[in-house]
Amino acid sequence: MSEHSIQITLIGAGTIGLSLAALHLSLSLDLILEKRLNLMICDTRPDAFEYVLQTLPKYLPPDLNVDGEERESFVRSLMMTDIIIITSDLRAAVLAADVIQEQGPENLSFKISLWPEVERHCPPKALLWTSTSGILASTQSLNMKNPSRLVVVHPYNPPHIMPLLEVVPSGVTSTDVIHRTMHFWESRGRTPVLLKETTGFVANRLAFALFREAIHLVNEGVTSVEDVDKIVQSSMGPRWAVSGPFKSYHAGGGEGGLEAFFKNIGGTVQACWDSNGKVNVGEPWEKEVFRQTKQAYGVVDTTNRDEKTRRVLEAAGSSV
Amino acid sequence: MSEHSIQITLIGAGTIGLSLAALHLSLSLDLILEKRLNLMICDTRPDAFEYVLQTLPKYLPPDLNVDGEERESFVRSLMMTDIIIITSDLRAAVLAADVIQEQGPENLSFKISLWPEVERHCPPKALLWTSTSGILASTQSLNMKNPSRLVVVHPYNPPHIMPLLEVVPSGVTSTDVIHRTMHFWESRGRTPVLLKETTGFVANRLAFALFREAIHLVNEGVTSVEDVDKIVQSSMGPRWAVSGPFKSYHAGGGEGGLEAFFKNIGGTVQACWDSNGKVNVGEPWEKEVFRQTKQAYGVVDTTNRDEKTRRVLEAAGSSV
Repeated sequence: MSEHSIQITLIGAGTIGLSLAALHLSLSLDLILEKRLNLMICDTRPDAFEYVLQTLPKYLPPDLNVDGEERESFVRSLMMTDIIIITSDLRAAVLAADVIQEQGPENLSFKISLWPEVERHCPPKALLWTSTSGILASTQSLNMKNPSRLVVVHPYNPPHIMPLLEVVPSGVTSTDVIHRTMHFWESRGRTPVLLKETTGFVANRLAFALFREAIHLVNEGVTSVEDVDKIVQSSMGPRWAVSGPFKSYHAGGGEGGLEAFFKNIGGTVQACWDSNGKVNVGEPWEKEVFRQTKQAYGVVDTTNRDEKTRRVLEAAGSSV
Repeated sequence: MSEHSIQITLIGAGTIGLSLAALHLSLSLDLILEKRLNLMICDTRPDAFEYVLQTLPKYLPPDLNVDGEERESFVRSLMMTDIIIITSDLRAAVLAADVIQEQGPENLSFKISLWPEVERHCPPKALLWTSTSGILASTQSLNMKNPSRLVVVHPYNPPHIMPLLEVVPSGVTSTDVIHRTMHFWESRGRTPVLLKETTGFVANRLAFALFREAIHLVNEGVTSVEDVDKIVQSSMGPRWAVSGPFKSYHAGGGEGGLEAFFKNIGGTVQACWDSNGKVNVGEPWEKEVFRQTKQAYGVVDTTNRDEKTRRVLEAAGSSV
């Protein structure tokens, strides 16, 4: 991409698309002021313009103030000066793009037919990223002329808050694409992590493993939905915000580290593993667990949650 | 316990014992100033006095300043004025106690012989708590005259930082003991959670389930020890510090809540569950995982980690 200006094209203006739009804007305020950033948003919904105008400001930092403008008027001025361009024309959207980031419908037929079309019209050096949470690049790229261009860049929701980006190349994704993708995010202070292809990628696999055990323990009547959340929020949540599980258990073993940890309490760990719950989706636990969750939380206020999460990330010293 | 003064007796002055001592002191500064708190520390190690004097100040908040005294001189003055009393005499330690909290060796024979001795000498209303991470109250109380007095109060390490206390009664623990235990911690702004007896209790079971999957993914070469920690620290750690897994996935389902979440991505969740790793303690993964962890972290500075965790808990709005 050019040193002097950059065009980022987002395909799909749903919740993730606009959260990514907010992220790119807040990471590039200096470029915007110098008119060196263009953000193309490609979506076929007829009310796209109004939708972006209404929704995007909410994802920008609440204290954002650029040249005396607050969030709403800031976004409006970017749309009026063509720094943000909204279009339903895929060809126009990708024609001059440096980065093309896709978060359209999460189904294979959409994605598999999208990439050859993108590839036909975009510049040869443009980075092609899919935000998919589960459809591997090796599958999505089946009909591409040059499948080495595509890489998964899976954000953790919502991306304008959470620093993680799982970068998952297929077996043929080029080293150059991987390097430039990692550099893009690292140089912007986010946390890209390079993984091998696997079902569900890593973050969700880890979280779902814990969640399965949580459902099992609620289903067994050992604890409740609300108490699981209280437990996690007052123990491993804050711990892991600062120090991940390997580092934490390594510290738990004292000078002997993780090896000593397993020597000391490996028996308890294995006893827990041996009795791990094996609940499955669609089984009878759902009714009671859904009921408890709804009763405990109603509809969750994610604005409040996201502002707290911003402060937690600052306190933990992670990039945000 | 008396409205006017309280005696807390800690049995075992190891790391957890002194962390709990620091917790009780910081939660009761007003009582200390009025000389209405006594903290008995019972341990048989010959250097107990010096050990407490050296170690306890490190667990107190770094900005602690009571009556112009910093942490070290504060602890010394409490020891000189018998607000903190160190003894190796179990009978003397429990004779006038309102709360007796045990964190001795984690073996059944120690605990099973301790409680009848405590019971014989302590006041009839004293609360009897074991900090065990795995030996159930129903097992520990086998030789007690009145097993209804004993309850597990399992802290999350280190207790002077982490708000969680897992309160795990046996089938015969009295309602009165449970209520007074919950009230003790709730009224001090901590997070006691009442559970049914189960192997490993809930917090460790949840964390170990995620950790098993983490080890599996490292073992499969999908990711590395350091990258797992980066992933957790930049995604579910900060998220769960603010909003536990049920609340988070309930929000993830939008207005349809957790039910809609499973409707949308239940297939991916089940696919991850179906391919969950089944590593076991003592298997060949240990060598490489221990090596990677040691290489990544050496010896962990928990002081720095704990101060960050304090700030994370404040930012998350949890009690600390």
